[in-house]
Amino acid sequence: MIDALVLPLASASDTAGILTDLFLVLVAAKLGDEVFKRIGQPAIVGEILGGVLIGPSVLGWVEVSEVLRVFSELGVVFLLFWVGLETRLSEMRAVGRIALTVGSAGVVLPFLVGIGFGLALGESTETSVFLGAALAATSAGITSATFLDLGIARSRAARTVLGAAVVDDILALILLSVAVGMAAEGGVDAAKIALALGIAIAFVAFVALGGTRLLQRRPKLLQAPRFADSPLLPAVILCLGLAAFSAQIGLAALIGAFLAGMIVAETKDQSSIEAEVRPLYAFFPPFFFAFIGIELDLGSLLNGDALLLLAAITVLAAATKLVPGYLGARRLGKAEASIVGIGMIPRGEVGIVVASIGAAEGVVDAELFAVVVGMSILTTLIAPFALRRLSRVST
Amino acid sequence: MIDALVLPLASASDTAGILTDLFLVLVAAKLGDEVFKRIGQPAIVGEILGGVLIGPSVLGWVEVSEVLRVFSELGVVFLLFWVGLETRLSEMRAVGRIALTVGSAGVVLPFLVGIGFGLALGESTETSVFLGAALAATSAGITSATFLDLGIARSRAARTVLGAAVVDDILALILLSVAVGMAAEGGVDAAKIALALGIAIAFVAFVALGGTRLLQRRPKLLQAPRFADSPLLPAVILCLGLAAFSAQIGLAALIGAFLAGMIVAETKDQSSIEAEVRPLYAFFPPFFFAFIGIELDLGSLLNGDALLLLAAITVLAAATKLVPGYLGARRLGKAEASIVGIGMIPRGEVGIVVASIGAAEGVVDAELFAVVVGMSILTTLIAPFALRRLSRVST
Repeated sequence: MIDALVLPLASASDTAGILTDLFLVLVAAKLGDEVFKRIGQPAIVGEILGGVLIGPSVLGWVEVSEVLRVFSELGVVFLLFWVGLETRLSEMRAVGRIALTVGSAGVVLPFLVGIGFGLALGESTETSVFLGAALAATSAGITSATFLDLGIARSRAARTVLGAAVVDDILALILLSVAVGMAAEGGVDAAKIALALGIAIAFVAFVALGGTRLLQRRPKLLQAPRFADSPLLPAVILCLGLAAFSAQIGLAALIGAFLAGMIVAETKDQSSIEAEVRPLYAFFPPFFFAFIGIELDLGSLLNGDALLLLAAITVLAAATKLVPGYLGARRLGKAEASIVGIGMIPRGEVGIVVASIGAAEGVVDAELFAVVVGMSILTTLIAPFALRRLSRVST
Repeated sequence: MIDALVLPLASASDTAGILTDLFLVLVAAKLGDEVFKRIGQPAIVGEILGGVLIGPSVLGWVEVSEVLRVFSELGVVFLLFWVGLETRLSEMRAVGRIALTVGSAGVVLPFLVGIGFGLALGESTETSVFLGAALAATSAGITSATFLDLGIARSRAARTVLGAAVVDDILALILLSVAVGMAAEGGVDAAKIALALGIAIAFVAFVALGGTRLLQRRPKLLQAPRFADSPLLPAVILCLGLAAFSAQIGLAALIGAFLAGMIVAETKDQSSIEAEVRPLYAFFPPFFFAFIGIELDLGSLLNGDALLLLAAITVLAAATKLVPGYLGARRLGKAEASIVGIGMIPRGEVGIVVASIGAAEGVVDAELFAVVVGMSILTTLIAPFALRRLSRVST
C-alpha cells in the first residue's frame, strides 16, 4: 500500500488506504486489459497480469487484504450472475448428461492423480489429499469470462463446461470435507459429509427448478416492492442471498449467483435487467481477476526445485482435466469436445482457496502453497489463449 | 453475524459470513425503505432504522466490521458522485459567496459552543475540543440524499448547502488536526496544519477548475480507452481516484467523489453516463445509511444522565447549524434560507467519525461516544422530516 501522501491526521489513513487500494487494483486491471486488447490477446490475462504487476511479486504496492478478498469474491459472484442471466434452465438440461460425465470424471481423475503424485514425492497422506483436492477444483469464473469474451457463452460447449463446473463444485465439497476431516484431529465424519452433500444437491435442485417456475408464473415479482424503481435491486438481493447461502452450506458462492441469474432470466423484462446489471458486471469482476495476480508470490517460486515441481504439477493439472473433458464430450464432435476439455483446465481462484485451507490446517507448507498458486495461474492463463485459437478455427 | 447454517467445513465460513452480512444489510435497508415509502415517510430514515434493527441495538445480527465500513464509505462516495453528476461548476459559483458564509459560520459557532459546553460539564480541554469538532461536522450525504428524494437537488438552496458542506469539510480538517494535535503528546503543529490546509484548497480548486476545463475541451476523453465499451469505468476510476486522494490529504472522500461527478458532468454524453452510474448508485448508498444505524448502541444510552446529555447536545447541535445557516442564506428569502438552515443540521457519519477518532485517542469515553453517535443519528433524522414539510409548503 502506498503511504498517505501527506499525513496531517493520524487517523485518516484507514479509509484512505483502502480506497487507494481499490483504485490501484481497478487501474491495474483495466491497464492490463487495455494493453492486451491492443496487442490482440485475451483481456482477462491482461487483468491478471495487472494484478501481478502491482502485487508483492513486482511493485509491491498492494497486498492481499480482507477487503480486496471480498471485492474479488463479489467479482466472481457478479460474473456468474451475469452468466446465469444468459442461461436458460432448458439449455442446461439439454447438456445435463454430458456435463455430469465431464464433471465427475474431471474431478475423480485429477484427485486420484494428485494424491498419487503427492505420495510419490514423499508427502504425507494428508498433504497429498489436499494436493488432489486442489487439482480437482475447476474455476467456472475464468472459463465463463473467456467464453463471454469470445462471444460463445451460449454455445453448447460453454453450457457443458458450466454444468460440469456445478457438478464439479458439489463433488469438490465432498473432497474438501474429507481433506479437512483428515487434517483435523477428529477424523472424517461420514454422516456429516453425507448431510452436507444432501443439502447441497437439494439446494441446487430446489432453486433451479422451484425458482425458475416461480418467476415464470409471476414475472413481475421483482418489480413489486416500492423501493424497486427497477427490477435491479431485488435481483441483486436475490443474487447476494443465494450466493451467501451457497457459501454457508459449503459450496462456492458463485453457484448461488449463477442460479440467481438463471432464475431472474425467466422474468419477461430480462433485457432491461441485463442493461442494469451491466455496470455492476463492469465494476466488480476486474477485482476478481487482478486479485488472482496479487495472490501470486513469484519470490518463493524462483528456485530450481520449485520451478520443476510447478512445471510437473501444471502438466498433470492440465492433462487430468483435458482428457476426461474431451472424452466425456466426445459425442459433441472433435471441435466442441476440445473446447470442453480446455474449458475445464483453469483452476483459477478455486485451487488457491483449497491450498489456503490446507495451509491454515498446517498440512500445506509455504513452498507447496506457492506452487499451487502458480499452477492455478498457469492453468488459468493457458485456457484463454487456447480457446481463442480453437474458436477461430472452428467458427 | 448469523452462524453458518451447516458447518461441514471449518473454513468456509469466512466468505459466507461476509456475504451474509452484506445480504442482511441490503435487505434491512430496503425493507426500511419499503415500509417508510408505504407510510409516506422519508426513505433514508427507513434505511437507517433498518440498520438499527439488525445492528447491536435490537437484533444483533450484524456488527460493525471493516468490510461494512468500506461499503458504507463507497455508499457515500457513489452518492456524492451522483450528486456531482447533477451539478455544474457555474451553478456552484453562483452560490459561492453565500455558501462560504454559511459554511464558515456553521463551523465556527458549533465548534465554540461545543467547547464551551464540554468545559461547562467539567470535561478536559482535549475532550471539549473533540466535542466541538463533532458538533462542527456536516454530513453532505444525508442532506443530498434528502434533496434528491424531494426532487430539489438542483435548487439554489440545495447547491448552497452542498457548497457550504465543502467549505465546512475544509475547515473541519483544520479543527480535527488541532484536536488530534492536542490529544497526542506532540501538541499542535501549526506549520503542518497550514500545509494541509493549503493542499486541500489547492486540490479542490485545481480539480474543479482544471478538470472541468479539460473535459469541456476533450469530451470524448473518457471513451478513449479500449477497455471502455462505455464511459462508465473511466468515470468510476476517476471517482475512486479523487475520493482516495481526498482521503489521503485528510478531506472526506466524498469531496473527491463530488468533484469527479462534476467534472464528468461536463462531457457531452452526460445522460448516458448517468444511466450507467445509476445501478452503482442504487447498490452502494443503502450500505451507507444502514451502517449509521448499525453503529448505534442503544444499550449505553438507556440511562437518565446519558439521555439528558443526548437531548441537550442534540438541541445545541441543531441550533448552532440552523441559526448561522438561516442567517447566512437570508438573502435568498425566508423559505430557501430555512431549507439551507435545516439542510446543515445532519451530522450523519461525519460526527461519528470524529467521535471515533477521539475514542481512539483516548479522550472520548464510551458514554460520550454513544451520546455523539446518538446526536448524529437524531440530527440526521430531523432533517428529512423537516425538509419534506418545508418543500411541500414552499413549492
